[in-house]
Amino acid sequence: MATVISPVADICRAAKRAAKALARVDTATKNAALEGIAVALEERTPEILEANELDMRLGREADLSEALLDRLRLDEERIAGIAKAVRQIVALGDPVGEVIDGHRLPNGLDVRKVRVPLGVVAVVYEARPNVTIDAAALCLKSGNAIVLRGSSSALHSNEALARIASGAAVAGGLPEGCVSLVAGGGRTPGGGTGRSLAELATQKGVVDLIIPRGGEGLKAALEEVATVPVIYAASGNCHVYVDASADEDSAERIVLNAKVQRPGVCNAAETLLIHEDIAAEFVPRITRALGDAGVTVRGDERTQALAPEPAGTVETATEEDWGTEYLAMTLAVKVVGSKEEAIEHIGRYGSGHSEAIVTRDTDSARAFQLGVDAACVYVNASTRFTDGGEFGMGAEIGNSTQKLHVRGPIGLRELCTFKYLVEGDGHVRA
Amino acid sequence: MATVISPVADICRAAKRAAKALARVDTATKNAALEGIAVALEERTPEILEANELDMRLGREADLSEALLDRLRLDEERIAGIAKAVRQIVALGDPVGEVIDGHRLPNGLDVRKVRVPLGVVAVVYEARPNVTIDAAALCLKSGNAIVLRGSSSALHSNEALARIASGAAVAGGLPEGCVSLVAGGGRTPGGGTGRSLAELATQKGVVDLIIPRGGEGLKAALEEVATVPVIYAASGNCHVYVDASADEDSAERIVLNAKVQRPGVCNAAETLLIHEDIAAEFVPRITRALGDAGVTVRGDERTQALAPEPAGTVETATEEDWGTEYLAMTLAVKVVGSKEEAIEHIGRYGSGHSEAIVTRDTDSARAFQLGVDAACVYVNASTRFTDGGEFGMGAEIGNSTQKLHVRGPIGLRELCTFKYLVEGDGHVRA
Repeated sequence: MATVISPVADICRAAKRAAKALARVDTATKNAALEGIAVALEERTPEILEANELDMRLGREADLSEALLDRLRLDEERIAGIAKAVRQIVALGDPVGEVIDGHRLPNGLDVRKVRVPLGVVAVVYEARPNVTIDAAALCLKSGNAIVLRGSSSALHSNEALARIASGAAVAGGLPEGCVSLVAGGGRTPGGGTGRSLAELATQKGVVDLIIPRGGEGLKAALEEVATVPVIYAASGNCHVYVDASADEDSAERIVLNAKVQRPGVCNAAETLLIHEDIAAEFVPRITRALGDAGVTVRGDERTQALAPEPAGTVETATEEDWGTEYLAMTLAVKVVGSKEEAIEHIGRYGSGHSEAIVTRDTDSARAFQLGVDAACVYVNASTRFTDGGEFGMGAEIGNSTQKLHVRGPIGLRELCTFKYLVEGDGHVRA
Repeated sequence: MATVISPVADICRAAKRAAKALARVDTATKNAALEGIAVALEERTPEILEANELDMRLGREADLSEALLDRLRLDEERIAGIAKAVRQIVALGDPVGEVIDGHRLPNGLDVRKVRVPLGVVAVVYEARPNVTIDAAALCLKSGNAIVLRGSSSALHSNEALARIASGAAVAGGLPEGCVSLVAGGGRTPGGGTGRSLAELATQKGVVDLIIPRGGEGLKAALEEVATVPVIYAASGNCHVYVDASADEDSAERIVLNAKVQRPGVCNAAETLLIHEDIAAEFVPRITRALGDAGVTVRGDERTQALAPEPAGTVETATEEDWGTEYLAMTLAVKVVGSKEEAIEHIGRYGSGHSEAIVTRDTDSARAFQLGVDAACVYVNASTRFTDGGEFGMGAEIGNSTQKLHVRGPIGLRELCTFKYLVEGDGHVRA
C-alpha cells in the first residue's frame, strides 16, 4: 500500500525489492494490472473527490491562486480522463525485452542488446494530481518501480490516487512496493525543496533515476543535492524563425499555432525571429494577427518601427526577453539579418528544446537543421508537435533537453536501459 | 595548438567553439585528418620519445613503481601501435548523421531521429600516454572536441602527443581548439584531484560529458564536485558462476581465461561461484588448475574443505573478498547452494559490469540472463569479451557500468547524442 509515513530510505529500499521482481513480470500481467488501476479509479472516484475537496479547501485557506487551484482540482470528468490515459498506456507496446541490436560475432558468439527496466524511478512533481497516475502507469508498464513525490498542496489527492493505484497493482499481481508516495516537503505550491527531496535525491544505488517535473526552483534545488542521476522534464525557450523565402500564410499559421494553441507548455514558442528581407511585409501582418489573438508582442527596434499604427502595440523587448520563457500569451520578436544570425541567436538563448524554421529554400532548411543544437528541429511545422503522443511514442513523462540518455520526449523506451546478452559454447578470449 | 598554460575555462570555451564547427565536418575530412595524425606520430617519434624520457627520469626520481614506469614508458614500437590504433578508428563507420529511427506520422510530418555529436568531451586519465591519442581519435571521429587531462607524471609525453595531434588535426582541416590538454593537478601517479579537475568538472553548458578513466579515488573526487554529466569508465567486480550442470572442461577453460588471460583489466573475473552439486568434483580440479597458473585462491569454508592437499593451498576468504576487485592474480571462490544464491550474491557484490554462467541447463541460463542486472551477461563464455573491439563496435574509450546513456563498451556511437528532425509543409497542431 502507498504510505507517506515511513522514512524515504525505507520506501526506496522497498521499491528496489519490488523492482527486481517487476523486471520479470510479463506484459499480459502488467497490462491486466494497469486495467485494474483504471477500473479502481472509476469505482473509487468518490474517495478521490473527497480527498481532493480537502486539498482544495486547504488551498483556498492558504490563498493559492485561481490558476493553481484549477490545476489542483479534480472532478468526475478529469478522473475519467486519468483512467483513459492509463488504458492508452495499456495499448502501447512493452519496451522490456525488445532486442535493440544483435549479431553473431566472427568467433561465433551471439550478442543481443536487449532493453530492460532501469529499476526504481522517482518522479517529483508539482500541483497536478493526474501526474501521480500518469507517471505510475508509465513506470509500471516499462517494468520500473516508482516513488512519487508530489507537492504538499496536493497531498491528500495524491495519497488517495497512489493508494488506489498501489492496491490495484498488487491485486493484479505486481509486487508490493511497486508504487509508493513520499510526502512533499515545502508548503509552497511548487513543492518547495524540503528534506524528503534531498533524501530521495541521494538514494544512490537504490533510486536509478529522478525525473523532476517542475519549475526552475525545483531544478536548482535538485542540482544542488542530487547524487542520483536526474533527467529534467524541461521547460523550453522555443523559437520560430521566418526565413526570407517563407510562405507567409504558412508562417502566420505556424507562428500563431506555436504561440497561441497552448501557451503554457514547454513546446510553445517564446520568440519569433524574422529575416529582414521579409520583415517589411511580414512584421505588420504577424503583429496584427498576434494582437488579434490576444498576444502581447515585445519587439526589437526594427520590429517596432515596422509594426502598424497605433504606436505602442508592440512593447519594447529588452535583453531579458530573449532568455525568457513566458509560458503565457506574450511573444518576443526580433528582425535578423540572416539565417546565420537566427541560428546564432537560438544557440545563445535557446534551451535546446524545439526550434522551427519556416522557409521555401532548401539551403536554409538544411543550414537550420544542421546548425541548431536542440532536441527537435522543425522545418515548416509548429514547435507544438514535440510530444510523445504526437511522435507516435505514446504517452510521455516529459521532454528532456539534456543530451545524455534521452533528448526530446521521455516515453516508455526512455524509461529503460539495456543489457548485452552474450551466448557461446565455451568461448574464451585468445 | 595544444596548450597547458591557459586557464581551464578558456580552453573549454575554445573547445566549445571548435565543437560547433566540427559537428558539421564531413567524414572524409575527419578521416584524412586522423590519417594525418597517424603520420605525424610516426614522423615525429623522436620528439615524443624525448618528452617521454623526461617523464621517465622525473618518475624515477620520484620513486614511481616499476609497474607505473612501465605504463608510462613509450618506445618506437608503442608509438607505432598508437598510430595503428588511429588508423583502425579511420576504418570505422562515422556515427554522425546515422538515422536511428524514422517514420511518417499520420498527419504527414516526417520524423527522423538522427545521431549528432555531444559537443565537448573531457577525458580524465591516469599514467598511460597512449590514451591521449586513443581518446582524441575517438572524439574527433565522432565529431566531438576533446579536452584531455592526464596525470602530472605523464605531462611532457601527453603534451607532445596532444601538440602533434592538435597540429595535424588543424592542418587536416579540423577547427582550432578541437584537441586540447589541461595540466593534471596532483603530483600523485593517479593524477590526484587538483583544482583543474574541479574546474573541468564544473564547466556546465560548455563541457557536455566527462569520462574519467581511473581508480576509485578519481571517481570519488569527481562525484564530489562534478556538475557536468559523468560516465565512469568503470572497473568491474566480475563473477563466473559454474552451474550444477556445467561441462567441466568448458568451465575450467572459461574460469582460467576470465582470471588469467589479462588479470589487470576490468572484465577479468574476481570471484568464482560453484554450485554445491558439482563442487566435490570441480573444486579440487579448478583450485589445482588455478594454482598451476599462478593464481592465489581465497575460498570460503566449503571450498577450503574440498581443495586438494596440502592444506593451505586455499587462503581464507573474508566478507571483504567478495567485494574486492583484485585486478591481480587472485580469485575468490565460494560454493553456493543454488543458481538463485549465485544470482543473489552477484546482485549484492557485483559492480554490474560482466557476469558469466557456465551451464548445460536452459532454465539456469535463462534465470541467469534475466536475474543478473549487469552491462554484459554471458552464457558459456568468458567475461573477457566485454570490449568494443570484440563486440564489433570498434575501439572504445572504456566500459560503463551506469544505466543511463550507455552500458558496456563506450564506442563512437556512445559518444553521440541525437536530435529529431521534423519536416512538414506548414503543419500546425490541432
